[in-house]
Amino acid sequence: MEFKVNSKELEKVLTKIIPAVPTRTPMAILENFLFEIKGGTLTIIATDLEISMKSSISIVADRDISLIVPAKLTYDILKSLGDTSVNFEITDNHKINLKTDNGEYSISYLDSEEYPEIPTFPTNEDEINEIKMNGLELKHAFDTTSFAMSKEEMRPAMMGTLLEFEEDGLRFVATDGHRLSNLLKKTIKPETEITEKYVVPEKAISVLQKILDEKDIKVYMSNTHISFKLNDIELITRLIGQKYPEYRSVIPLENEFELKLKTKELLTAIKRMMLFSATSSTRRVKFAITENNLEISAEDVDMGNFGKENIMCEYNGTPLDIGFNSQYVNDVLSHLVSEEEIIFKLHSANKAVVVVPNKSSDKQDLMMLVMPVRLNN
Amino acid sequence: MEFKVNSKELEKVLTKIIPAVPTRTPMAILENFLFEIKGGTLTIIATDLEISMKSSISIVADRDISLIVPAKLTYDILKSLGDTSVNFEITDNHKINLKTDNGEYSISYLDSEEYPEIPTFPTNEDEINEIKMNGLELKHAFDTTSFAMSKEEMRPAMMGTLLEFEEDGLRFVATDGHRLSNLLKKTIKPETEITEKYVVPEKAISVLQKILDEKDIKVYMSNTHISFKLNDIELITRLIGQKYPEYRSVIPLENEFELKLKTKELLTAIKRMMLFSATSSTRRVKFAITENNLEISAEDVDMGNFGKENIMCEYNGTPLDIGFNSQYVNDVLSHLVSEEEIIFKLHSANKAVVVVPNKSSDKQDLMMLVMPVRLNN
Repeated sequence: MEFKVNSKELEKVLTKIIPAVPTRTPMAILENFLFEIKGGTLTIIATDLEISMKSSISIVADRDISLIVPAKLTYDILKSLGDTSVNFEITDNHKINLKTDNGEYSISYLDSEEYPEIPTFPTNEDEINEIKMNGLELKHAFDTTSFAMSKEEMRPAMMGTLLEFEEDGLRFVATDGHRLSNLLKKTIKPETEITEKYVVPEKAISVLQKILDEKDIKVYMSNTHISFKLNDIELITRLIGQKYPEYRSVIPLENEFELKLKTKELLTAIKRMMLFSATSSTRRVKFAITENNLEISAEDVDMGNFGKENIMCEYNGTPLDIGFNSQYVNDVLSHLVSEEEIIFKLHSANKAVVVVPNKSSDKQDLMMLVMPVRLNN
Repeated sequence: MEFKVNSKELEKVLTKIIPAVPTRTPMAILENFLFEIKGGTLTIIATDLEISMKSSISIVADRDISLIVPAKLTYDILKSLGDTSVNFEITDNHKINLKTDNGEYSISYLDSEEYPEIPTFPTNEDEINEIKMNGLELKHAFDTTSFAMSKEEMRPAMMGTLLEFEEDGLRFVATDGHRLSNLLKKTIKPETEITEKYVVPEKAISVLQKILDEKDIKVYMSNTHISFKLNDIELITRLIGQKYPEYRSVIPLENEFELKLKTKELLTAIKRMMLFSATSSTRRVKFAITENNLEISAEDVDMGNFGKENIMCEYNGTPLDIGFNSQYVNDVLSHLVSEEEIIFKLHSANKAVVVVPNKSSDKQDLMMLVMPVRLNN
């Protein structure tokens, strides 16, 4: 059988699907695309067994067929062809012959039966919820929270981001136990009440961050899977089955001292302190807070180097010395950098610190949390 | 003692010098800058023992001193400070205290005696040659030839680029035995005759490629060292002492068959062939040459994939099949891509092939050479 496509059009689709193809996997079969040709539509599927991605393109084909093609080679060839018409001829001896005006390329394919079971969305379940949202709103929510996800496999739930529906909107929470990002998106609201909570794994989030745009998307949730339907792509991922930790219990409510600062001023100073804290195991930066002055300092004891800066601030508490992991403060501030001013809410040197924007917004509530590290003195 | 500098000005100098600082070296002392303050001038020096770089900046200082400072930390701090005045205070207990409006940073320094001997240009030698040239002309010559240098330590001379003065200009030659680039720059001519040949090592060339600009530079050559004096930087490198191989003897003179092609057309086709040749040990691409058609092809035998393309050409010889390492053809063509048309000069399937631009230039003569690889049939 044969079909024809424009190289640029097919390349565009493959560019979006290829992030789902694992690069280092013991299961070599996953390094392939599944091509399904049915009723004049070519559907391209890729999976790493956790997520699956799917997209389609219209073609003129005289019969239906499914086959497995090497993902990277097929993608690289299409990319290298520029903008041209490509004829695909699928032979019975497991060859795809691609023809252009000047070239012929032959790629081996496998029968589609060898492809593993693809994570698919359960369609016969009772409890399926759905919601429509803007792609950029979702992207922004992941950008603002997912950095705080844990990379340690000890507690699998914390390796994902929690999605929690509330009366006011959709809440995104991520934490690794050292810092936490907690964002309520008031612009994302389901039409009917959703009480379930969903923990979305990292891989799906990092792929979505790359492909989401200003277009609306539809999200479907079952007890085991979540599906993101973009304009021309569907991404399905398994949900993390473990229960998300009770993050609310670690957020201090009675931190009575407020430290107000210009975000960029503190961030650039922290980056300089990181030059001195990089060698210590806790990457410690010390905050010495007084009424109108924050002194931050870091020391490289082994090399005998240190840095110290003074930053203007407003502080309403008793003078306080507190230590942080400079990397974590940097992460938190980097994700608050669109806020001109931020407030650190503190209580003492060994209690979790809350960081919030100084200005509240009617579109979202954002709250970050950083655990302090012990000071030696 | 103290001195003041503008952070941006000092950063600009350090940016140019830091490429000479080795990143992975068993001699930790080389990871430092040598700061020499003398008569109101701060001279910054770095070396990896093969090359040394030096640049100066005017400062206001009340006495002379030399010290060793950690290169990366000093550079990173300066870079992170933005544009501000920095006060350097050098204390007797081996600390440099940097002060800005808001910050204080303390860095340990070492005494200058601990710094190793720096490659310096021998000033008392009789046979010192000098030549002035345009920075971009030199950069272009290195860009066009140095890719062909050998990376194998078996033959040290081939790890450098040969500089050979001729009546018509300066010749640059680099080869690894598989391909050769040979460029005569007619725009670079010494005022007096120079008969010596110089082999410049890779490190100096790669640093020069980064820092050369349109300004004129002065080059000084002794039997053991070569010095490049830019506007505000001096780079000195040891020359490679071993004799450069007799490259002229491998350049075939009687290759009577000429194959004329559009450079970009062949280059993009070769890049597609590389997708199929990547797994074979010789990365072989086959050229099947006939009067008006070049068929190039490559095969991945293990995976059962292959590619084949036809390219229009002009050829005046008997039909010829010849194999090349596609990577080497790609390298050669990539460095000829500013030429619209090129000519392959051939004789037979096992003889070196000469590649030259179709149009000659009164500014330069460029000639590349590629060795063929054996075809199986």
